[in-house]
Amino acid sequence: MPSPVRLAEIVSALGGDLCAEQGADLVQIQGTVISRLAPLDSADASSLSFLSNPRYGTQLAASAAACVIVSPAMREAALARGAALVCDNPYLYFARLTQWWSARTRRAPVLGVHASAVVEPGARIHASVSVAAFAYIGAGAEIAAGAVIGSHCHIGADARVGEHTRLAARVTLGEACRIGARGIVHSGVVIGADGFGFAPDTAVAGLGTDAGEGPRWIKIEQLGAVRIADDVEIGANTCIDRGALDDTLIDDGVKLDNLIQVGHNVHIGAHSAMAGCVGIAGSARIGRFCTAGGGAIILGHLQLVDHVHITAATVITRSILKPGQYSGLFPFDDNASWEKNAATLRQLHALRDRLRALEKKQP
Amino acid sequence: MPSPVRLAEIVSALGGDLCAEQGADLVQIQGTVISRLAPLDSADASSLSFLSNPRYGTQLAASAAACVIVSPAMREAALARGAALVCDNPYLYFARLTQWWSARTRRAPVLGVHASAVVEPGARIHASVSVAAFAYIGAGAEIAAGAVIGSHCHIGADARVGEHTRLAARVTLGEACRIGARGIVHSGVVIGADGFGFAPDTAVAGLGTDAGEGPRWIKIEQLGAVRIADDVEIGANTCIDRGALDDTLIDDGVKLDNLIQVGHNVHIGAHSAMAGCVGIAGSARIGRFCTAGGGAIILGHLQLVDHVHITAATVITRSILKPGQYSGLFPFDDNASWEKNAATLRQLHALRDRLRALEKKQP
Amino acid sequence: MPSPVRLAEIVSALGGDLCAEQGADLVQIQGTVISRLAPLDSADASSLSFLSNPRYGTQLAASAAACVIVSPAMREAALARGAALVCDNPYLYFARLTQWWSARTRRAPVLGVHASAVVEPGARIHASVSVAAFAYIGAGAEIAAGAVIGSHCHIGADARVGEHTRLAARVTLGEACRIGARGIVHSGVVIGADGFGFAPDTAVAGLGTDAGEGPRWIKIEQLGAVRIADDVEIGANTCIDRGALDDTLIDDGVKLDNLIQVGHNVHIGAHSAMAGCVGIAGSARIGRFCTAGGGAIILGHLQLVDHVHITAATVITRSILKPGQYSGLFPFDDNASWEKNAATLRQLHALRDRLRALEKKQP
Repeated sequence: MPSPVRLAEIVSALGGDLCAEQGADLVQIQGTVISRLAPLDSADASSLSFLSNPRYGTQLAASAAACVIVSPAMREAALARGAALVCDNPYLYFARLTQWWSARTRRAPVLGVHASAVVEPGARIHASVSVAAFAYIGAGAEIAAGAVIGSHCHIGADARVGEHTRLAARVTLGEACRIGARGIVHSGVVIGADGFGFAPDTAVAGLGTDAGEGPRWIKIEQLGAVRIADDVEIGANTCIDRGALDDTLIDDGVKLDNLIQVGHNVHIGAHSAMAGCVGIAGSARIGRFCTAGGGAIILGHLQLVDHVHITAATVITRSILKPGQYSGLFPFDDNASWEKNAATLRQLHALRDRLRALEKKQP
Repeated sequence: MPSPVRLAEIVSALGGDLCAEQGADLVQIQGTVISRLAPLDSADASSLSFLSNPRYGTQLAASAAACVIVSPAMREAALARGAALVCDNPYLYFARLTQWWSARTRRAPVLGVHASAVVEPGARIHASVSVAAFAYIGAGAEIAAGAVIGSHCHIGADARVGEHTRLAARVTLGEACRIGARGIVHSGVVIGADGFGFAPDTAVAGLGTDAGEGPRWIKIEQLGAVRIADDVEIGANTCIDRGALDDTLIDDGVKLDNLIQVGHNVHIGAHSAMAGCVGIAGSARIGRFCTAGGGAIILGHLQLVDHVHITAATVITRSILKPGQYSGLFPFDDNASWEKNAATLRQLHALRDRLRALEKKQP
Repeated sequence: MPSPVRLAEIVSALGGDLCAEQGADLVQIQGTVISRLAPLDSADASSLSFLSNPRYGTQLAASAAACVIVSPAMREAALARGAALVCDNPYLYFARLTQWWSARTRRAPVLGVHASAVVEPGARIHASVSVAAFAYIGAGAEIAAGAVIGSHCHIGADARVGEHTRLAARVTLGEACRIGARGIVHSGVVIGADGFGFAPDTAVAGLGTDAGEGPRWIKIEQLGAVRIADDVEIGANTCIDRGALDDTLIDDGVKLDNLIQVGHNVHIGAHSAMAGCVGIAGSARIGRFCTAGGGAIILGHLQLVDHVHITAATVITRSILKPGQYSGLFPFDDNASWEKNAATLRQLHALRDRLRALEKKQP
């Protein structure tokens, strides 16, 4: 357990304007011991909380937090309740606070290469790295300064892990694939499996399609790799396939949630973010500063320009050349209502024709 | 191979009323050797089968099974075919039978800690557990009595595995995460990866949004954990993220299929069940006795009360405060029909306006 | 790095008609050194490229490739640019070329069993296999000639890996599950986790449904296995569950992309192919030569005949007994347009009734 921290230390490290409520002693508030960061509704007298969305203003008044991080606009409302830490962007402040807090409290990885790890000859491992139990590092691979390789990771031959990048347990970084600096890769991630590429072979001896036969799938070996730039985070069990000929590219600052599929030859532009269960088919080009909600699908060979935002569960079937928000999900309903509307949907084109016929009859 | 089992042994262990068909010798039927449990249509003379759904009544008559487990209502129909094992709830009986059968036939895990496993100092491992090859158990972790840890598992520091819980090969249980008693966790599951949380930082020096720039994503360290109660089963490659501040909670008896995404701070109430590929976004609150069909998506910060049932592939976009079945999937059709209806769907609002205009013209 | 290869060697190995452009020296072209295979648009003077789709004809003229593989119909257009390699099916030729190229350039797996691997007594491992670091091979398992087992693989007791089948790192092949010859299984795949099967037990002592209670889920032990035939490829983090009583079956030549869920007792017919994130629920029967686009879902207990093609993100809710293309996805739109149409969709049935009423009023 880390030593307790006082509010004054937090302000000293991260800035902000610590304010006492009417009649309270600022010095005493500076000395308040904070034992956890907590949401407004579960905070107690040793919690530091935050309010980023004015929507939660009613929670503010009721919170038992020792202190609440708020914007200047919420200063008075916060002080009506108790101590406040005022800053321009409470959510961003909170993010940095969690980083500072985590650095104080999380176990540091053990430096060096665990005795059980297997490191092939020719791998280059910086002296400042941590390589955990049962990690495998292939020939010619490079693990740069400050990198952390979790247990049961497989680092393929000639792969590279950049400075201070952390791989959780059970990550596969395939042969010749690379990730840059300060990345975070969660458990179960597979970088550099083969892309899904096959040529249909219809000339199978003695078989004709008229006999109910069909093509055999001839594998296209995937000769490219995956290149991931700096400051990229990749969620658990997400897959990024290697390119067929050229490389699959993930640019700086991209954030991918869990269970995402990124096909071969995809490019994802810098600072784009994708929520869980998104699927991006092969050769799609996604711009910078794009987002996709959970379960969205982007079909192959499409282009999305910068600043395109896809709603959850939406399927993108053609390129999007104009920034904006795009949606396409079936609105849910109670089952009986849905059944009626869905059945009618299958007659929609016919309904349109009937409407048109009526219109023509009108004078 | 286990020793053969006679029908009488099964009845002795699990109950039920074994009945001979007209003219048959019950003692002889009690002595029938059963070598496998089988569906009605692939059963043979050494198979025990079951009929739970009267829909499959025609399969009953044609089945070659040695004996069929049926409800009292199907007793006569079953006896017209051959021997029957009559019980109140054949499907439930069958479930218990598979458990009894499995206990007889499955290889028992080898007790003790495999020589290749790595157990950090300070881990507490009960004498009755099984820890397989290449398992890693972090400092401060606890493995309770009768638990089974599969090969290549990663048990993080201070994590806890409850009594008789079984982890298959290649499971990650993250730092400080806990699972209760009698759980089953399948291969590739990741419990306790970081939730997907970032604060946008728009104040990037020298950049303006007018220059086509956008925010950087600043990581919110995920300081919570995952707490899983008793009798929970988690399917292969499913992910359950740790909470941002508080814990992600999975209550008693919850059953999750494969490739499910459970975001940070989600609560899933007791005895709810989710089919494969479901996605539950962060901070969703799911009630008790809920179900979701395959590929359903529940967006973040929503509440679903008890006894809510979501149809497969439905996207839940607002809270559901009334029990019932909810649906929202696009009905499929042959491609040509779909294309026409889908194209018209994009003019639906305009069609409504045209219909309204026609209505106004009516006398 | 492999030694450079000349065009003449490629033609000698794979056939085709190497043609020089007007005024060029064929012998000199035969001697051209090829250092990589490249798409038309990123090819350089040491690249061999290909044109399979006439749509990309304009890329052909602009390509800097040393030589382009084309069909007879594109011969003149190709020669107007430079050297060409003419063959009947350029895409298939290219596929075979990548295989030939890969065999020359990829690192060969190290033969034998790595010193760190754990092989249980009674496992049968052919002398010609490669078993990588930290692999676990259970009792009674068989690894056939030429097979490759990646690092951190778990091969369950009595499982079988066929001739020349390659498992990447971190694959689980469950107890008694089998895969045939020449298969490729990517990282994170789980074959043989339990299918999702539970019987509801509503007779919980002292609880009634009127008290807001509901059923407990009683596990149906999954006693079947998974049987995979020859020439099957399975993408990263895909899951194939074991059958409840009988086996789950994947037939010859099936290709599965990443993050696919295949439920218990599913049958997938020969040479069918499924793109990423597809979900196939339990007991579905898929025919031969079928395809499914990314994110498609096939519900349980359905039958799809041979040559059925499912569009991406389509949900199949009833059996399909006629070959063809089937679709059912919501067309995306800019968010404002979608909102209007989606809202109206919920009144669609009522709109139909209003239209009908208008029609009745017509003379």
